[in-house]
Amino acid sequence: MNYLNDFVSLLSKLISFESIARNRNECRETAFFLKGILEEIGFSVDVIEHPEGNPVVLAEMKGTDSGFIMFYNHYDVQPPDPIEKWETDPFKLVKKNGILYGRGVGDNKGNIASRIIVVKKLLDELGELPVGVKFVIDGEEEVGSPHLLEMLQQRKKFFNDVIGVIWETGGFHQDGSLSLTLGLKGILYVEMRAKRLRRDAHSSLAVLLPSAIWDLISFLYELKRTNLEAIKSFHEGIIDVKEVLREIEEVGYEIAFYPETLKEEYGIESFVDGLEGHEALLAYFGRPTFNIDGIVAGYTGPGSKTVLPAEAYVKVDFRLVPNQDAKRIAEELCNFAKQYGIECKVHSMTEPAFTSFKHPFVQRVLKILKKMRRKVKIAPWSPASGPMHIFTKYFGLPVVSGIGVSYWSSGHHAPNENIRLQDVEEAMKIIEEILKSKEIRREE
Amino acid sequence: MNYLNDFVSLLSKLISFESIARNRNECRETAFFLKGILEEIGFSVDVIEHPEGNPVVLAEMKGTDSGFIMFYNHYDVQPPDPIEKWETDPFKLVKKNGILYGRGVGDNKGNIASRIIVVKKLLDELGELPVGVKFVIDGEEEVGSPHLLEMLQQRKKFFNDVIGVIWETGGFHQDGSLSLTLGLKGILYVEMRAKRLRRDAHSSLAVLLPSAIWDLISFLYELKRTNLEAIKSFHEGIIDVKEVLREIEEVGYEIAFYPETLKEEYGIESFVDGLEGHEALLAYFGRPTFNIDGIVAGYTGPGSKTVLPAEAYVKVDFRLVPNQDAKRIAEELCNFAKQYGIECKVHSMTEPAFTSFKHPFVQRVLKILKKMRRKVKIAPWSPASGPMHIFTKYFGLPVVSGIGVSYWSSGHHAPNENIRLQDVEEAMKIIEEILKSKEIRREE
Repeated sequence: MNYLNDFVSLLSKLISFESIARNRNECRETAFFLKGILEEIGFSVDVIEHPEGNPVVLAEMKGTDSGFIMFYNHYDVQPPDPIEKWETDPFKLVKKNGILYGRGVGDNKGNIASRIIVVKKLLDELGELPVGVKFVIDGEEEVGSPHLLEMLQQRKKFFNDVIGVIWETGGFHQDGSLSLTLGLKGILYVEMRAKRLRRDAHSSLAVLLPSAIWDLISFLYELKRTNLEAIKSFHEGIIDVKEVLREIEEVGYEIAFYPETLKEEYGIESFVDGLEGHEALLAYFGRPTFNIDGIVAGYTGPGSKTVLPAEAYVKVDFRLVPNQDAKRIAEELCNFAKQYGIECKVHSMTEPAFTSFKHPFVQRVLKILKKMRRKVKIAPWSPASGPMHIFTKYFGLPVVSGIGVSYWSSGHHAPNENIRLQDVEEAMKIIEEILKSKEIRREE
Repeated sequence: MNYLNDFVSLLSKLISFESIARNRNECRETAFFLKGILEEIGFSVDVIEHPEGNPVVLAEMKGTDSGFIMFYNHYDVQPPDPIEKWETDPFKLVKKNGILYGRGVGDNKGNIASRIIVVKKLLDELGELPVGVKFVIDGEEEVGSPHLLEMLQQRKKFFNDVIGVIWETGGFHQDGSLSLTLGLKGILYVEMRAKRLRRDAHSSLAVLLPSAIWDLISFLYELKRTNLEAIKSFHEGIIDVKEVLREIEEVGYEIAFYPETLKEEYGIESFVDGLEGHEALLAYFGRPTFNIDGIVAGYTGPGSKTVLPAEAYVKVDFRLVPNQDAKRIAEELCNFAKQYGIECKVHSMTEPAFTSFKHPFVQRVLKILKKMRRKVKIAPWSPASGPMHIFTKYFGLPVVSGIGVSYWSSGHHAPNENIRLQDVEEAMKIIEEILKSKEIRREE
């Protein structure tokens, strides 16, 4: 039996659901489709629904030995925009020259399908699983998993006997290596709004009338220029990344960091602040960010309109390193904005998460990869975010990320998202080995 | 014969043309409609066309005495957007409780119609005009009159024997006074664009990737904070407004400045920089401005998208006081932007214009208004802009503005633009008196 064909067939069905988080019905259908598939294989499945959110799918199957490997995945996807830049229908799986195209093939339906098919393969070959497997399949990861903790708290028992969690995503670099990633940065996403006039004014009145957009720009720029000095808690609890990196490097692992790939992909010659070499590496992992995701005010159409805009909006996000406190930062930021007459609305908040490199689960996964002679680099954490802290902090579980079906050019969140079949095969082998290996469930 | 009815009938036809400058055919039809109307009354009319612009209408009728009073008006109007805020069809004249509604009733079709009907009335009553009348009716005022100078330069002789120019617009304040306005600020409208990445990036990469919007904001804010220090020519040639105001006030005229009306209209309690009283007055006339008309970057839709925008755009305008040099400022600004890797595109440029308070034409108009016992205040110039420098600088003519059919709440450029019939009657009386008075054409 060709399990790669089974994978393509399951993925093809998953891609056909337009499960963008805001499409509530479509998401619910995807969750129940997954329930069906998982039950067919032999999982016992529980779909937890939420009046304001998409369902989360919990699945469980015991193994020969006690204990469970848990997979965290999500079935929701990013919107396909800009739709006009897709060369194929984003909600139809297209296979061309060993490459699969579609929204979610890499992030994250390809990983869902590959992990389910590995379980199927093990059952076909061994009759039962060597170790138990649990799935948590989220439906709101792309919008910050706002209801996940609340839903999982109702099922605390589900997290008993979990040896460790394998995170949703991951993939292969140009040098063929995998990055084993031990955490995620946190994120604080905030929308701010300045309103200064009852209505837009003729721009000639800029002599006397206050400008919402100048006020907003001044506020943002001063915050940036002072490195968020006014937000005291922003500077508290920041973990020393040098220490974390030393721990990894002293046992001979390379750090997963590909500055030249980044430069090439985005067509730039140098990084911000002239960061190079080790400084760039330290910044990549150790620095929190203050990014403007979007800003708009006044007339932005073609040609000219001489207007003094009454209002101005900005969306910003802060990526937080362990152990910054998203909630306190949000409070201080919004209090500070208020002093400038700027309204503040927190869209989402996700705490940073981190599993120690020395944790036995991490070491066991590394040992398996070493046995398989796979090239592995280590990232202390990813600069991206996700609800990992729910598992590390609330349920006290170790989490490793980075074993997935994507590759360096998969284009998650972008048009023409794609994965290579060769990587899928490779990722499936590794997951199979982890589930089969006695290593993973034995205390040292 | 009721000339107010004639006015409403002519205005009604003018309003029915959707003569927004970009509607080239509609503008051409409006110009030829005006040609017909003016010829019917007895003007000799010349329509100058331009391959890339809308036609300008030149009309001329001799009077008993030598010399001409020239009216500058424009038949193009602002787009009606936001259309949903109109309570009536913007391109249909609606009369309700002595008020006329429609796009252009105040700016500037009401003034065109009122001035034509006054000429008709004088001809009916006197058989011929006491003084000659010329019209320049522009078709691109609302987009910066980009072709007007070029078109008028072909007809230099048309500007011979002109005593003075009466500008397009004007109206009545809450205290019943007219503002005689002796100039306009200039304007420089520029679009700037920063591009830093080949494509938008995931916001987590803000640690290392340059941000187009942060760069643009830093550039703008630093320019603003240093009062445009880097643009040397911005600070050259600025006229001393105190001297100009002193000249007016020492002969007993009040300065036309209504700070409380402004505050009320825009719902604010104080002006920028805490300007109050005489300081606010000096700033209103004497200060150039640096305004952001529009800015956009990244994701501006509902909800959140974690994106590091590859590009950012801004539209800015500078209002220039006499005698700042728009062209040199534009050059220096764009050279400076280039140093920051910011592209610069000049949309339009209009020089400031100014006629001396002591000019005999200004003094004669004031004498007529005094005889009529009209309440008059003086504005050395308006904070708004227009192609007045073509008349003052290129043809060396004195220009007065401020005698028009609008009132404080006409809402030029806004939805529900409107004028009051009582003001139309009043403005027509004044124009009639200016054309009839021996005063206007007699050297002192």
